[in-house]
Amino acid sequence: MFGVTILGNNSALPAYERHPTAQVVTLNEQLFLIDCGEGTQMQLARYKVKRGKINHIFISHLHGDHYFGLLGLITSMGLLGREQDLHIYAPPPLKDIIHLQLEAASTALPFTLHFHPLEKEGVLIDHPKFSVSCFATRHRIPCWGFIIREKKKPRKIDKDKITAYQIPAAYYERLKEGLDYETRSGEIIKNEWVTRPGIPPKSYAFCADTIYDESIADKTKDVSLLYHETTYLKDLEERAAARYHSTTLQAAAIAQKANASKLLIGHFSSKYETLETFLEETIQAFPNTQLAIEGVTYYV
Amino acid sequence: MFGVTILGNNSALPAYERHPTAQVVTLNEQLFLIDCGEGTQMQLARYKVKRGKINHIFISHLHGDHYFGLLGLITSMGLLGREQDLHIYAPPPLKDIIHLQLEAASTALPFTLHFHPLEKEGVLIDHPKFSVSCFATRHRIPCWGFIIREKKKPRKIDKDKITAYQIPAAYYERLKEGLDYETRSGEIIKNEWVTRPGIPPKSYAFCADTIYDESIADKTKDVSLLYHETTYLKDLEERAAARYHSTTLQAAAIAQKANASKLLIGHFSSKYETLETFLEETIQAFPNTQLAIEGVTYYV
Repeated sequence: MFGVTILGNNSALPAYERHPTAQVVTLNEQLFLIDCGEGTQMQLARYKVKRGKINHIFISHLHGDHYFGLLGLITSMGLLGREQDLHIYAPPPLKDIIHLQLEAASTALPFTLHFHPLEKEGVLIDHPKFSVSCFATRHRIPCWGFIIREKKKPRKIDKDKITAYQIPAAYYERLKEGLDYETRSGEIIKNEWVTRPGIPPKSYAFCADTIYDESIADKTKDVSLLYHETTYLKDLEERAAARYHSTTLQAAAIAQKANASKLLIGHFSSKYETLETFLEETIQAFPNTQLAIEGVTYYV
Repeated sequence: MFGVTILGNNSALPAYERHPTAQVVTLNEQLFLIDCGEGTQMQLARYKVKRGKINHIFISHLHGDHYFGLLGLITSMGLLGREQDLHIYAPPPLKDIIHLQLEAASTALPFTLHFHPLEKEGVLIDHPKFSVSCFATRHRIPCWGFIIREKKKPRKIDKDKITAYQIPAAYYERLKEGLDYETRSGEIIKNEWVTRPGIPPKSYAFCADTIYDESIADKTKDVSLLYHETTYLKDLEERAAARYHSTTLQAAAIAQKANASKLLIGHFSSKYETLETFLEETIQAFPNTQLAIEGVTYYV
């Protein structure tokens, strides 16, 4: 399972029961929280996301609609007796903001909080099965996108063939890694005779808040699912630029240039009561688009 | 109109769709916000409270469930173009917490924010028609309750009598203030012959979070409506004391000692799914009690 569950799809002002930005990426047993707008802990409860399984939280930037729910979530985790470490990746000033508030409350968390300041593009987590990296987007203040990539998956063994070639079971793991097998008599059994390619690795890119910036397409090249903000409809391109945000057509253009398989759009301005037009405009330019709807999980 | 609208009635952890502490006191045209837990701006919208009319915000203490919604509310007020001044009365460390977050967001509010640190008991606002004072409660960290009192109301003129005594209209305001009238011939018309007492002034006391503390009854003597926390039912008196909170019977005891006309109970622990037992226990000791329910306005 590799998917993203939307907890908040709105921009700065909460409106029409839409919440500020927060989303949970599920990758097998891992839950990653990306952004944590006000009310995120309530949204996690509403959509029955197991907050105890969140060990990594990524904050794109320090506009309140992307992190004002963080302290509430952290202190609630403490009250619920969490013991395992929690990692937060965020712009450097958040560290003092967190500590000042814990100190004012005279709160000692029962778990260790590791703060990882976002200062340059690169890998944040390098796990045997996946990686998480950050990349800069262009917003009014320093802002970061995140890419979660599965690593190359093992090749699949053809059971009939390995039986026919009499390859010992102890060698199966090496076959999955793509190695050839040499028999006792020195004969080489080519890997591709007995295995098939594994499922191609997938990837998810969250592009945070950003003005239209083609470098984002390079940074998210060939991603399986691209999340791009569409604060405004296409007619408000000037306003979008003035506020360092993007329109429907701009999100579609980035997805196309990135060669993304799918596009997910969100961060809708509170000036719009309904969202259908966002989808209609975007699919004109990039057909494989979906609207980010709160409570819905989109598979990568 | 003098009433209090509950926006959040739960203690630390949001649960069962109950929210952390926040309430709006309406006194004629004035709206006072007392505490501002996470999600308060959404609750204001849900219950159609006009946030633009809130000019004074009182924060009892710096546990997150009493103020984590403040920054979101302030920045939303700014995004909505608020221009009139906003006054915040809160424990001193909140000032730095606010400014650090505005600075991190590179946000300049379009209105002036006046921060009034709570440092000693006394009058915070002295208006011709009402006053607001603060008093210390006993909690794990510095914590303040607030009392909003109407001032003495003008006496009511008996129209038949003032006509009979031929008192000129220009003197009516002085009659309402309780002054006697002297005729040209030097005759004294006693005030009580021509007026009746005004409606008795009312008062609302918010007792914040507190351990059972009888001094609170002295500080809220004769209040019309007393809000007292009841985090736990009566059987958990020890736990309440250990956590600097109160039980149902303790809230009732304070209301009785204070000679309050009515009691409103709230700040229910998340361990309780339903609230009926809170009311049942409290009315045994103080019959004129109501449960603080979100979205409901209680008249003072």
